[in-house]
Amino acid sequence: MMNKKGLAILLRSKMRPLSPVSKVTQLQHAPLDGKIPADQNAAVKTPRDFGQVRESMHSVISMNKKEILDTALNDFSEGYFSLSQENRHKLLLILAREYDLNRTKVRDLMKQYVGLEIPSGDETDEHGHEIESQLSAFYRIERNLRHALKPMYETLFERLNTHPGGLKFLATVRADILSIIADENIASVRALDSYLKEKLITWLSPANLELYQITWDDPASLLEKIVAYEAVHPISNLIDLKRRLGLGRRCFGYIHPSIPGEPLIFIEVALMKNIASSIQEVLWHDPPTPEGEATTALFYSISSTQPGLAGINLGKFLIKRVIYLVKKDMPNIYNFATLSPIPGFMQWLLSKLASSERSGPIFCENILKPEEERALMDACMDSTTGKNGMEVLLLLLTSTNHEWTQSDRLTTLLEPILLRLCARYLTLEKKRGKALDSVANFHLQNGAMIGRLNWMADRSEKGLSQSGGIMVNYIYSLDNIEDYAQGYFSTGHIQVSSDFHHHIEREIKIQ
Amino acid sequence: MMNKKGLAILLRSKMRPLSPVSKVTQLQHAPLDGKIPADQNAAVKTPRDFGQVRESMHSVISMNKKEILDTALNDFSEGYFSLSQENRHKLLLILAREYDLNRTKVRDLMKQYVGLEIPSGDETDEHGHEIESQLSAFYRIERNLRHALKPMYETLFERLNTHPGGLKFLATVRADILSIIADENIASVRALDSYLKEKLITWLSPANLELYQITWDDPASLLEKIVAYEAVHPISNLIDLKRRLGLGRRCFGYIHPSIPGEPLIFIEVALMKNIASSIQEVLWHDPPTPEGEATTALFYSISSTQPGLAGINLGKFLIKRVIYLVKKDMPNIYNFATLSPIPGFMQWLLSKLASSERSGPIFCENILKPEEERALMDACMDSTTGKNGMEVLLLLLTSTNHEWTQSDRLTTLLEPILLRLCARYLTLEKKRGKALDSVANFHLQNGAMIGRLNWMADRSEKGLSQSGGIMVNYIYSLDNIEDYAQGYFSTGHIQVSSDFHHHIEREIKIQ
Repeated sequence: MMNKKGLAILLRSKMRPLSPVSKVTQLQHAPLDGKIPADQNAAVKTPRDFGQVRESMHSVISMNKKEILDTALNDFSEGYFSLSQENRHKLLLILAREYDLNRTKVRDLMKQYVGLEIPSGDETDEHGHEIESQLSAFYRIERNLRHALKPMYETLFERLNTHPGGLKFLATVRADILSIIADENIASVRALDSYLKEKLITWLSPANLELYQITWDDPASLLEKIVAYEAVHPISNLIDLKRRLGLGRRCFGYIHPSIPGEPLIFIEVALMKNIASSIQEVLWHDPPTPEGEATTALFYSISSTQPGLAGINLGKFLIKRVIYLVKKDMPNIYNFATLSPIPGFMQWLLSKLASSERSGPIFCENILKPEEERALMDACMDSTTGKNGMEVLLLLLTSTNHEWTQSDRLTTLLEPILLRLCARYLTLEKKRGKALDSVANFHLQNGAMIGRLNWMADRSEKGLSQSGGIMVNYIYSLDNIEDYAQGYFSTGHIQVSSDFHHHIEREIKIQ
Repeated sequence: MMNKKGLAILLRSKMRPLSPVSKVTQLQHAPLDGKIPADQNAAVKTPRDFGQVRESMHSVISMNKKEILDTALNDFSEGYFSLSQENRHKLLLILAREYDLNRTKVRDLMKQYVGLEIPSGDETDEHGHEIESQLSAFYRIERNLRHALKPMYETLFERLNTHPGGLKFLATVRADILSIIADENIASVRALDSYLKEKLITWLSPANLELYQITWDDPASLLEKIVAYEAVHPISNLIDLKRRLGLGRRCFGYIHPSIPGEPLIFIEVALMKNIASSIQEVLWHDPPTPEGEATTALFYSISSTQPGLAGINLGKFLIKRVIYLVKKDMPNIYNFATLSPIPGFMQWLLSKLASSERSGPIFCENILKPEEERALMDACMDSTTGKNGMEVLLLLLTSTNHEWTQSDRLTTLLEPILLRLCARYLTLEKKRGKALDSVANFHLQNGAMIGRLNWMADRSEKGLSQSGGIMVNYIYSLDNIEDYAQGYFSTGHIQVSSDFHHHIEREIKIQ
């Protein structure tokens, strides 16, 4: 076990003169306002001719493996960053098409393979020598096939991965690939993406990630990244940041040794007396609960920093590890819960309501109960001209500036209706057997249960638009994390607290 | 860039209760006297039935990926360690044969693939849409084939790799696999080994290794490993160890984050005024040169700690990184050199001499020059009964307890002869275009040149047996490392210093 002499750990990056790559990538991420590397930075570097960059990409792939690659790799990545978005796309298309695999070679190997006779069990002597000698031909061709099935661009990815700054560069490349796919469905680029994604998953396995506590003592270059990438509840100023790293707060990140000083994902924790029911309570929790009196660790924000790592679940083991760590440091903490957004609720609800408007209430499920229908029609007779409850609800929810939240009467009217529909959305709306809501799916697969729905818990523009201001607490119950995760995985079963249960008991009988 | 707050880096292993695996592996390596995990340790744990361990191996491979594996993995590795060497071999044979790949599935995919028509360039419109849609069938089957060609044991390796203690456990498994292969050439086990080796090479890429300076302040559990694994110049006692970590000395290791507290390879450095010409000078360099007066960093020992990582070049970037680091810390150091053994010299020389004895001098190259032949015959007329110089030399070198080293007359006689032959061995004896001597090959591919041969530089039993006591300095000249490495790689060209040159100028004209 490594001791506290971590001080003496000499990171790679300390030993190398700052390479052009890392300079470039630092520049790319310097702006605090943009999440995705901005192209205007290209202007500060010497622009390169597209042909030159293509040439340098080719050298990196085709150089003999023991030749000295560092210069070529730097040259290529520097050149890549200097390209316009359009030229990057052009280059990636060339990479996908012209650095693919040799299909003739693959076929030749297949023909050899299909010609081999699969040894039957009967021919073996007691030590299996007969079979062994027949199998060695299979092993040989299988091995050759594995290599032949690797596209040539694998070499580029592998070489970049072992190059300082290369992993981060690859994340940028993947972000660019994703933006091509978003524009146009090109089979070769999708194949490129799926190959790179598999590689990144291997390289970013939890075994390679270090859990790191981020504090106010960290360098500004790291802290600015927390500010830039906080995706859930934006950090407004330095005082806000300092509070989130100060007394009664914790912030942990996963750091990959190849991307030092920049967490790939980070989680913010508030130590409190109770499970908070509104985000304002957490963000403006001043003075915070003395740490000795806290009984609850509330996870109120998880953000990932690399758009190029989309679809790669980095958070999988993060929460579990943070829980163990907090528990060990502070035995007085026994509640572990989140205060989470429900990013897909409004989108789901509005599309339900709109489809009723289009197809009429007869051909479409009325998601309102009769008494809700009545209450909505009664309340809005005067001002709103809806033909039925769903239409009234749609009009209310889509009013400019979320006008309904300004009226006590309307919020009182909508509270039970939206809470019930939200509970239904979270627990009953599925996609391929998993919760439709991405945040719900994330926590459920981590082994959480759904705790309490909180009305008007996030009154920010974003909160109101996404979920009508509702937030939810997911509860991590230490003794049940494994069982719940397994149950959710194998049968799609969603655990809910007794607190939550009443919202949905009329919807469906849950044992 | 990570700052000095490395202190706060929270390593995985700190966050988890000590798992059975890590307990077991620590036990395995506790004895200071043995390099390979000793089986007698099995006795201290509950012995497991072979069937049970086989069962637990099967669970690890066949469990659904989201199921909770930790218990199964611990169970398996604990069980594995409790098995006798014989049962481990039996289990690995089962793994190699029964957890191979599904050849019927592979063939089915191949048949689909061979049936596809390779799109020709002519059919493309300007955006290549036609080709793209035809290619998507290829991409799909290629992707499926890549997966089908993965043996089932890949799952075991992957799961162990992401499990705490698993990477180290895999190194033990590979050591066991190598010992099976050493006994018997079994195709399926060789396939298992080559697959595991490729995986280990990926996981242990330099990008995942941290350079760590080992000091006297490190925990005893780490230092005992340095003592146990120092393979070149054994560490005799605590005072010896303390000296090697003290003033005028440095020790650096590569640490993998998954195997904390145990370097996979380490290098020992002495800071001196001159390039040492004998190992005694280095090991008994007391008092050492004041660090401010040192101009030379002498690498006098490189040892790897895991027999299961044989054949995986971990040292590749180690020396270069250590050089940059030392250079940065101590600008007064400008000489970087090794004092290295020549492990294959005597073996090569004795086999040359012996083959002459068998086939007679006519059918065999006389490796002695006429004047050397004469000197040997003259000197040994009285005592030794050799028919010719080579026979006399063979008899002298194979005398009990290296008797020749006790006689001033004989050492004076042999000095020029052995130095010349050693120079020939180092520079002219090749295997597949590379230096035959493994240590020479290691440094030459790292970009060193051959410096000076040192007579009677290592008078230890090992030194005399391996190289007649001769040691060599490899010189790392900062400005030329890259060029020399590339030259050696592409043409096999070996750079030698002017110092060294006179030994071989009569052998061959080196421009």
